[in-house]
Formats: sequence, structure tokens, C-alpha cells
Amino acid sequence: MTSSWATRRGEITVLDCTIRDGGLVNGHHFSDDFVRAVYKTCLGAGIDTMECGYLNSPKFFSPDKYGVWMYCREEDLRRIVGENKTPLKLSVMIDCGGKSDWENDLLPKSQSVIDICRIAFYANQTDEATAMINHATRLGYEVWANLMAASLLDEVTLDNALVQLAKTPASVIVVVDSFGAMLPRQVACLVEKYRRLGGEKEVGIHTHNNQQLAFANSIAAIESGANRIDASLAGLGRGAGNCPMELLLGYLGAEPSRMRPVFETLEHHLHPLSLQEDWGPFPEYMITGQCNAHPNDAMAWRDDLTTRDHYTQFFDRMHK
Amino acid sequence: MTSSWATRRGEITVLDCTIRDGGLVNGHHFSDDFVRAVYKTCLGAGIDTMECGYLNSPKFFSPDKYGVWMYCREEDLRRIVGENKTPLKLSVMIDCGGKSDWENDLLPKSQSVIDICRIAFYANQTDEATAMINHATRLGYEVWANLMAASLLDEVTLDNALVQLAKTPASVIVVVDSFGAMLPRQVACLVEKYRRLGGEKEVGIHTHNNQQLAFANSIAAIESGANRIDASLAGLGRGAGNCPMELLLGYLGAEPSRMRPVFETLEHHLHPLSLQEDWGPFPEYMITGQCNAHPNDAMAWRDDLTTRDHYTQFFDRMHK
Repeated sequence: MTSSWATRRGEITVLDCTIRDGGLVNGHHFSDDFVRAVYKTCLGAGIDTMECGYLNSPKFFSPDKYGVWMYCREEDLRRIVGENKTPLKLSVMIDCGGKSDWENDLLPKSQSVIDICRIAFYANQTDEATAMINHATRLGYEVWANLMAASLLDEVTLDNALVQLAKTPASVIVVVDSFGAMLPRQVACLVEKYRRLGGEKEVGIHTHNNQQLAFANSIAAIESGANRIDASLAGLGRGAGNCPMELLLGYLGAEPSRMRPVFETLEHHLHPLSLQEDWGPFPEYMITGQCNAHPNDAMAWRDDLTTRDHYTQFFDRMHK
Repeated sequence: MTSSWATRRGEITVLDCTIRDGGLVNGHHFSDDFVRAVYKTCLGAGIDTMECGYLNSPKFFSPDKYGVWMYCREEDLRRIVGENKTPLKLSVMIDCGGKSDWENDLLPKSQSVIDICRIAFYANQTDEATAMINHATRLGYEVWANLMAASLLDEVTLDNALVQLAKTPASVIVVVDSFGAMLPRQVACLVEKYRRLGGEKEVGIHTHNNQQLAFANSIAAIESGANRIDASLAGLGRGAGNCPMELLLGYLGAEPSRMRPVFETLEHHLHPLSLQEDWGPFPEYMITGQCNAHPNDAMAWRDDLTTRDHYTQFFDRMHK
């Protein structure tokens, strides 16, 4: 193990976002078998939190189109985890901006197996995010603030958002590199900023792998004092995907007995999925990452099999 | 571009090792068309050096088994590059330890299109490497010293090798992460050590992508003062592959007109090759990287289609 090279601040916890961010790859259509395998892997690997999906509203996302992990209804969660009498915490992500019906859909904590609500929002939605953080906290949840697309923000906008978030009851503010555009040095600077402006809150990191830097940026964040780290099995996640859990756990010095269940699930669930679904640091995603652009164009380009892997045309399109 | 985040020391030059390290993927059986495409891409992208292959001996590696880029004979090189009246330098790698017949096969520089000889050796071969460096220098070449598998060396062995190399006429000593085992912090420490003990020599970096850190480790090396950087198109190289050129050039702030030829060649040559040959940061290579072990076992595991992608068994084998 090379983990002795890690430098860290205090206790680090790991959040598995395989089902949540991976849902953006397959329309949230995971089989119960697949979700159960991820749940068991999290338990076997000693992972701290599993994010089960989005708690968005069927009013805004039709159940004809999206799988149940877009909504994380209590009955769907319990079909997999029962009462979840385990050390593993469960989280959901709730979107700002008219995607969730958070005032009605979120149950009081006493009626839910969910432990943590992660609020996903853009900087111009910080007021609504603050209301959501307050609401979920009142209902009894631990709440994290996931300020997306931080690589687009000028310093004043970012500072203002962080100062506002610092006053909320959120326990964690997450540095989110939505576009996979950040370099390790930039991640380190942002983690330091979030720690400085975030008051007593912990700082998290959520990376995308457009430039094959998702793992390296997670390391840079840890070395700068982030200690809430997102990763996913085989890096499953939107577009280029996320930090691969199998790499993060190795870096954190996990024992072989903790690593083995991860590689087992890669073999039996993620590799088969990779033959049907498309994610990873393909050149189209490198190009959007280098341009600090949303991966949507690259995803559409790869979804269309007549354009997928035609990198030159896509490059021209992004540089026109 | 996020390249403004780069911190660098002096002039950086980039070496393309697509054909040389990639030869370890396909037995050095590249078509002339493919090698010519890489050559033209290097010219179009403004890359400084192209490594054309190994200058090893047909006495030790049968031409029945290996392609011509194992030997880099002058007639093969000239078929592609002519007299190479371009700013692009050409390099070859010459192995120590009874793989090359360097005393006989290397022509005087005046008779060759080769500009740079890179001597590849393990620490216990430093004496022979020194003789090779002296010989190639006397023949008129620029010479680099590629001390392989540095992640296996204890500090005394490494320091002794570096002190000996510092006295040779080699112009560059390369930090080589043969096993893809290093983390960015470790690469930074090694670059600093190589600079300290290497005297006036430049320091290079050659990474492998087992832990998806090849690009990040190259960045870490650059930030620590390395300025001779290896990369390959689509990361083509042994096992997990190398630092992808398309990412390195983006980091270094290459203009779109320099990047476009790279993505064009990825589309027309590397993507088709990826449908026939197997390289990249697959889980088997992650496991050997995490174990700081040679990738040979993982390559054999993936070459056998009855074992490829059976990660659990391979994990058990590496942890028995």
C-alpha cells in the first residue's frame, strides 16, 4: 500500500454515489438486485454513507421516463435496506430550482430510513437552498450543501454563497467540480476557501473524471483538509464519471478484506453494466472538461451512435 | 483553459512515447500508416520529441515475433521520416541487461536520423547504463537516463544510483513510475530528489496510469520542477498505459490549432486500435498498482479472455 503518503486532517468519511450519480447515466433505472449489491458492498467495504438517489418529484420528472431512484420513495428504499439497522448512513440528493417538491415529499426523519439530505443547487439558487437546508434540518436530518459548478463562479459570487451557507445548519459544504474542469491545485485552493469561509462546517469533495483527475483531485482535497469524500464504484456517474471508489479506498489504506467486496461487485455488476451503458473519460468529455463546459453536449454526442467517437467534429463544435 | 493554474520551472518539453511504450501492447507491430500518423501529429501539435521505438537486438528478440519498432533500424525510420528536416527530435529507447547490442547497433550520429538515446535500466544495472550513456554520448547523441521501477527502491539504493548518474554526460534523468504505484506527493518528492542529486541535469517524468494518476503525477512532477514530460496519444502504453497526450497538452495551454490534430488522430487511429488492442486503467492494473507490483501478471490475466475481467480471482491471487 502506498497510503502512507496520505496526509489528512482528522476523521475522513466516504460517501458512495454510485446509484445517485450513476442514475444520470441510465435514467435511474437500476434493478433492485443492482442497488442491493451496492448496498452490501458499502457494508462490506466499511463505507460510511450510501447515496440512494434523488428525492425529486414525479410532478416534474415523469415516472414513465425515469426509474424509481429519481424519487427515493420510502417504500422503494425499504425494499432494499429494510430498517437499515447498520452503521451505514443513507443519503438522498434533493435538487433546487423546481425539480423537487421538498416541502411535501420529505417525511419527518422519524418516519424515514434516510439519514442525510444533500441539497444540490447553483450559486444563484442559494436562497432556495438555504430554505431547503433549514426545512430538512427541522425535520431531523443531517444536511449537506452541494454548491454545483463551482468552476464557473467568480470569486465574489462564490464567497457570498459560502458566507450565506456558513450561517445555515448544514454540517458539510461540498466542493463540486460538476464539469471535471478543475486541476488539483485549484481544488486545493477551493477546499481551503470553503474551510475558511464555512466556519465550523466540514468540507466535502465531489469530482468528475473528464480529465482523469477525479481521484487525483480527491487526494488534493483530502490533503487540503476535506474529509467528506464522494466516490462511486467503477467511477459510475454522469458523463466521464466520478472518483472510482476502488482507488479512493486503496489510497485511504483499506484492508484487503474491505477491498475484496468492491472488486467483486465491479466484476459482477459494474463490468456487465459497462457493456450496456456509456460512461468514462472519453475524449468528448476531455474536451468539455478542458473548456470548463457542462458535459450535456458531450453526452448527447456520445448517445448518438452516428456521432460518438467522432472527436474532431466535436472539438470543432466546442471551439467554434 | 485552466492552464493558468500551472506552475512551472523554465522551459518544458514534451516527448511522445506512443509508438515506443505502445509497442509493448501490440508486439511493436505498427503499420507504417500508423507511425506516420503519429509523426505528423507530433509535428502538428508542436511536440518536441517523438520516441520511435526500442533499439533492441534481433539477436535477443526474434523478428518472427516482434515488429520493426522493436529495433528502429535506420531504413525503417527513414521510410517514415525521411531526413526529418523538422523541429521534431527523434528518440529511441535502448534496454540494458542483454536486450540490446548497443556496442554494435548504434550508428554514429552523423549517419542516423535519431537525435536522442534513452537508456532504460534497473538500479542494479547502473554500471552498464553508465557505459551505454558514455558510448552513445561519444557517438554524438543526446542521452537520457531512464531508471525504471523507482517505486521499488530503498532510499540508499536510489541515492547511490542518482549520484552515479549525475557524473555521466546524460542530460536528463527520468523519474519512471513503471508500476503506476506512485501518488502525486511521492512523485513530487522524487522529482525534488532527482533535481538535488542530479546536478545540472534536467529531470523528466514517465508515468503509468494504473491508478488513473498518470496525468496527475505528471502535473505534480511539473509543479516540482520536472520539465521533460512523457505522454502518449490516448495514453497508449503497456498495461494501464501512460499519461494521455491530449490531457497534458491541454494543461500546458496548447492552442486549439495544436490540439485539433491530436483529437483527429485519436479518432482515426487510436480509437480503431482500441477495438483490437487492450490497454487502460482496468481493475487488474489498479490492483497491481496498489500492490506496487509489475503489471506482467495483470497483462497475462487480461490477455487470456477466460480470465479477463475476473477481478476477484485476480485480487485473491495478488493478496495471497
